[in-house]
Amino acid sequence: MSIRAGVVGAAGFAGIEAARFILGHPEFELVAATSNELAGKRLADLYPNFEGVTDLVFSAHDEAQLDTCDVVFLAVPHTAAIAQAPALVKAGVAVIDLSADFRLKDPAVYEQWYQVKHTATDLLAEAAFGLPELFRDGLEALAAKHAAGEGVLVGCAGCYPTATSLAAAPAFRAGLAGEGPVVADAVSGVSGAGKKATERTHFCFADENVEAYGVANHRHTPEIEQILGIEGRLVFTPHLAPLDRGLLSTVTIPLGSTPVDQAALDEVYQSFYQNAPLVTVLTGGKQPKTSSVAGTCRAHVAAVYNAHANVIVATCAIDNVGKGAAGQGVQCANIVFGLPETAGLDLIAIPA
Amino acid sequence: MSIRAGVVGAAGFAGIEAARFILGHPEFELVAATSNELAGKRLADLYPNFEGVTDLVFSAHDEAQLDTCDVVFLAVPHTAAIAQAPALVKAGVAVIDLSADFRLKDPAVYEQWYQVKHTATDLLAEAAFGLPELFRDGLEALAAKHAAGEGVLVGCAGCYPTATSLAAAPAFRAGLAGEGPVVADAVSGVSGAGKKATERTHFCFADENVEAYGVANHRHTPEIEQILGIEGRLVFTPHLAPLDRGLLSTVTIPLGSTPVDQAALDEVYQSFYQNAPLVTVLTGGKQPKTSSVAGTCRAHVAAVYNAHANVIVATCAIDNVGKGAAGQGVQCANIVFGLPETAGLDLIAIPA
Amino acid sequence: MSIRAGVVGAAGFAGIEAARFILGHPEFELVAATSNELAGKRLADLYPNFEGVTDLVFSAHDEAQLDTCDVVFLAVPHTAAIAQAPALVKAGVAVIDLSADFRLKDPAVYEQWYQVKHTATDLLAEAAFGLPELFRDGLEALAAKHAAGEGVLVGCAGCYPTATSLAAAPAFRAGLAGEGPVVADAVSGVSGAGKKATERTHFCFADENVEAYGVANHRHTPEIEQILGIEGRLVFTPHLAPLDRGLLSTVTIPLGSTPVDQAALDEVYQSFYQNAPLVTVLTGGKQPKTSSVAGTCRAHVAAVYNAHANVIVATCAIDNVGKGAAGQGVQCANIVFGLPETAGLDLIAIPA
Amino acid sequence: MSIRAGVVGAAGFAGIEAARFILGHPEFELVAATSNELAGKRLADLYPNFEGVTDLVFSAHDEAQLDTCDVVFLAVPHTAAIAQAPALVKAGVAVIDLSADFRLKDPAVYEQWYQVKHTATDLLAEAAFGLPELFRDGLEALAAKHAAGEGVLVGCAGCYPTATSLAAAPAFRAGLAGEGPVVADAVSGVSGAGKKATERTHFCFADENVEAYGVANHRHTPEIEQILGIEGRLVFTPHLAPLDRGLLSTVTIPLGSTPVDQAALDEVYQSFYQNAPLVTVLTGGKQPKTSSVAGTCRAHVAAVYNAHANVIVATCAIDNVGKGAAGQGVQCANIVFGLPETAGLDLIAIPA
Repeated sequence: MSIRAGVVGAAGFAGIEAARFILGHPEFELVAATSNELAGKRLADLYPNFEGVTDLVFSAHDEAQLDTCDVVFLAVPHTAAIAQAPALVKAGVAVIDLSADFRLKDPAVYEQWYQVKHTATDLLAEAAFGLPELFRDGLEALAAKHAAGEGVLVGCAGCYPTATSLAAAPAFRAGLAGEGPVVADAVSGVSGAGKKATERTHFCFADENVEAYGVANHRHTPEIEQILGIEGRLVFTPHLAPLDRGLLSTVTIPLGSTPVDQAALDEVYQSFYQNAPLVTVLTGGKQPKTSSVAGTCRAHVAAVYNAHANVIVATCAIDNVGKGAAGQGVQCANIVFGLPETAGLDLIAIPA
Repeated sequence: MSIRAGVVGAAGFAGIEAARFILGHPEFELVAATSNELAGKRLADLYPNFEGVTDLVFSAHDEAQLDTCDVVFLAVPHTAAIAQAPALVKAGVAVIDLSADFRLKDPAVYEQWYQVKHTATDLLAEAAFGLPELFRDGLEALAAKHAAGEGVLVGCAGCYPTATSLAAAPAFRAGLAGEGPVVADAVSGVSGAGKKATERTHFCFADENVEAYGVANHRHTPEIEQILGIEGRLVFTPHLAPLDRGLLSTVTIPLGSTPVDQAALDEVYQSFYQNAPLVTVLTGGKQPKTSSVAGTCRAHVAAVYNAHANVIVATCAIDNVGKGAAGQGVQCANIVFGLPETAGLDLIAIPA
Repeated sequence: MSIRAGVVGAAGFAGIEAARFILGHPEFELVAATSNELAGKRLADLYPNFEGVTDLVFSAHDEAQLDTCDVVFLAVPHTAAIAQAPALVKAGVAVIDLSADFRLKDPAVYEQWYQVKHTATDLLAEAAFGLPELFRDGLEALAAKHAAGEGVLVGCAGCYPTATSLAAAPAFRAGLAGEGPVVADAVSGVSGAGKKATERTHFCFADENVEAYGVANHRHTPEIEQILGIEGRLVFTPHLAPLDRGLLSTVTIPLGSTPVDQAALDEVYQSFYQNAPLVTVLTGGKQPKTSSVAGTCRAHVAAVYNAHANVIVATCAIDNVGKGAAGQGVQCANIVFGLPETAGLDLIAIPA
Repeated sequence: MSIRAGVVGAAGFAGIEAARFILGHPEFELVAATSNELAGKRLADLYPNFEGVTDLVFSAHDEAQLDTCDVVFLAVPHTAAIAQAPALVKAGVAVIDLSADFRLKDPAVYEQWYQVKHTATDLLAEAAFGLPELFRDGLEALAAKHAAGEGVLVGCAGCYPTATSLAAAPAFRAGLAGEGPVVADAVSGVSGAGKKATERTHFCFADENVEAYGVANHRHTPEIEQILGIEGRLVFTPHLAPLDRGLLSTVTIPLGSTPVDQAALDEVYQSFYQNAPLVTVLTGGKQPKTSSVAGTCRAHVAAVYNAHANVIVATCAIDNVGKGAAGQGVQCANIVFGLPETAGLDLIAIPA
């Protein structure tokens, strides 16, 4: 089997990482990597990690060509996916959207946080949410639909929502959480700020620096609240730190009336992820390190019972571009195509 | 005037930074930098930033010599300060302790968190707490006592407590805070882990990595609770990130019944720090960056009103070894000796 | 086919990277990863990148077990390979030595630079030199011997010799080089200094720092001279820079009487490496970047004709632990076992 | 005394560092920091290290205002200094040019490497070369001229020429060097690439990467050759490494007929720099580290006799923006104004 795959917006960090995962995938074949700006240049001209690997060139966006793909990954800014996805789905393509356009189930919430009208609400209603460990059923339903010949759409979770939700969801789903604010302080590598050269991404400004940004107004807030079902309770503060790849979310969850101890907590988390091949629960005082998952689609999770203040402190480390974007897209595509969930995703991070 | 200064434990990061600040101080003269292990070696042999600056050598610990100092900075492990401070104070020395021994006012709390008995509780009762912006009166009382010829002791605040308290104290002292957990997620550079070469401090393990540590049991927890008066309510989670110097604390404070808006919050913070020459309040959406204060004794603070979840998100950036240790020690000593608070501390961080 | 593979000294950076490559290899099976110090611990306990990947534990060194392996990688200090290799070869094992013990063909040179007697000179005479792009014949001869049932030994090239020789060899073999010193200034990531926690490898000392070391006396000097046939002419100066993985060697080669221009130089280099799947020659002003090969066994090479001073400036980027050690070992093993040279080595570095 | 100082092009890295040094200078007063693009913004808005330090705002370029300055630092692109310097000098100002416009004594060489005509050759002939340790006489001649009321111009050395020449000059001036290529391989931090956000300066592309650039055609080549008097013999290859500040130049110098040993070499270097307060010669196997001089105007130098290949390997570490640009400008200005050479330059780098 060879599944023809296209990447729209392949020049950006999420798009080019999707290309890398596809090139190493046993069943996918990369047939199109679009970038209107760089059309005609080799991927390796921009990203020399591909020198000696592939001579593929970026192509201009061409809807007819994309319609011939079996799967298309959209690594585009929000609103662009709304513009492109409907035609592709209609053409029978499995569309894996890495943008924010099909994540928020309520168009009004989308319009509030993104300040733009959602013009593909029918498709939004049909889309599956792309975070397999928490919403596998939706993806498997799409697989059935796609097997029957229909185009389908997955709106993949954002990087911060992925890490934050993988850390917190087991506690919430087990009914351990009580009332009050849920605080997620997350730290991301600079690749999270995108490929555009700006003052924020300049080495000399990012190096040796940690800072918060988007305080009290980051757009991933409603997405995390939707996943965890905690509307109006999330305090989400993202930070930048001087590393390329990696995202750690530290989530403080107030406890409810259910008594908790560390052993019980470990049991809840390990049980929750027992069938999730890409998520590993760390116990015995071990904490997730972003370096342990860099370049992969894996997630490391730990949950600590803090008796002093009666809360859970749950942490999750991912690669923001891997499990946080392109890798998760491939994982979702694997499920949609009935492949092993980890196909092409068995990479191991560099030790140390 | 020349004030004779000694540093005990000068080979470690806090001690050697104290030496650097003293060498650049207009009134202090560095007469002793002790390290039993490195006695006889030049400071510049271990820290070549001193090549061309000073040929001073580390000396073995010598109580008689230290007794001749006007001020002694103790940059030693906890319990060592308990052992050394009483004799120095008795000899009339102004002792600036950078260790944890004289921070916690209740010996029982010290004994609970450090698992060792406090054997200098009389001196503990007399000691001033070394965080001038919040506890200036105590330091000025010591100044009077020292001017009268007596030895005195300052127990300087730790690095995490300094940043966390500078971020949160204005809100608490203004009565804005409500009930429930106060969450402080802080990120430190690797110098916070000390000079000892370990797996944690190995470049290849620290580089490109963010991780939490000491979750639910870090010893700075009771110190922060003491400063803010929030016993049992603090959830403190420290993290390591790949930078040398720098510490950012992000504190989420639940609001009480007093209505708050951003303008009022800015006013509270600016008013609180209006006479603090080393603390700058950032407004207008600016966030503190650790790089902006690296190598200095300055602190940058911002407080954001998060209407979504009705909390304050307050942040503070310091240099963990500067304002977080050695610089704060010098600042306290300046006050004790009646000098301008910023003497020797007017360094400006490298731009960008 | 499943080829049973063991790694001796698996806890160090070269050993654990060999384990990573073997775990991702289609034909090799990792049956032993020895570390006397860490015996009984999981690989993932020390290197959490293996969490969720393997639960293999480090085992104590056990000659009988290693004798049952088809291939054993020795990632041990020099002299230890001399002690261990002979028995393994006698037992019919294909031994891939990553240490310095079997690189220098003249035992007197070994004894001069390592200050210890070589006690396995017979085996040294039989060993192949492990740098496939330059010494393929020797490795293929071993393949024939091993296919006939005999144990064999490969002494793999060091990291600096690999990069320096890949940069310079085409010019020398094409007869372009003239008389006079050949200058190789190379920059390595900190992983080249090994896993031991020392002042040199401490994050705070290595961060934001570049320095030369081993000036005029680094042990890789005679190895490079042997490869290029330039005894007494090499000026080799290694440097450390603040990155984990990566090694760039910049080699300045005086030209001889043969006229050279850039086009001819490109042709020489591209022709030289046309059958080398893991080496890519960059032309058109492109320069090798270490980040483009990090985590892989690839090498990027460029050669520039400097008309101003009539020299060639040749550069090569590798991963010092990948192509510079463990990856090269696997590449050599592939040849010895008659596998495709790139088996298990088709990893692509993270883009950007 | 208060010397009125202006900085033209103050928003770039060299300009803002000049501002920092001036703000900490005991005799200089910063009266103008120009940036047409940022006019009206506070320095601290762009560089928050100045928060709490100064509220000075960038001003638009205003010749009349600059004419009232005693000293003006030009931190502008080449050709802009040619346009601005003559009028300032005519107005009696001491002009310290940090650009490339007044470094090369032969206008034809300037025109060859910069591809633009030099239109201020009279002023070029009068300008002193700004590298005090090697060309003190010229600067002292300017001091006399300026004391007599005339405007003067210093063309400060570039960053690579400064480090390379400080490393090599003692050997050349002592007549130790022989024939043949002189190889300078230098490594710079990313600040050397300037403040402009580009792909080269993007954190994700610069991080974990070392690469050569400008191979065989870097414009600092003729400047170094002019300083050392080795026209046509220099092979200069600059590299970028992942640090902010710092530049290490490693220079390989072929020996001539004069016999050399390490002790003699140390003596030559120490004697050469005995009256240079900002240059320290390291001996006994110590090598310069860029981190030891970061943020300062100091230089660390070592020279090693390589008997194996009969060359000297000389190294020098500086801060590329400090001693390599703004700091050197202040040092030159100090001499021109008859101040102690180190006034305002007694900063000590952060230990470790």
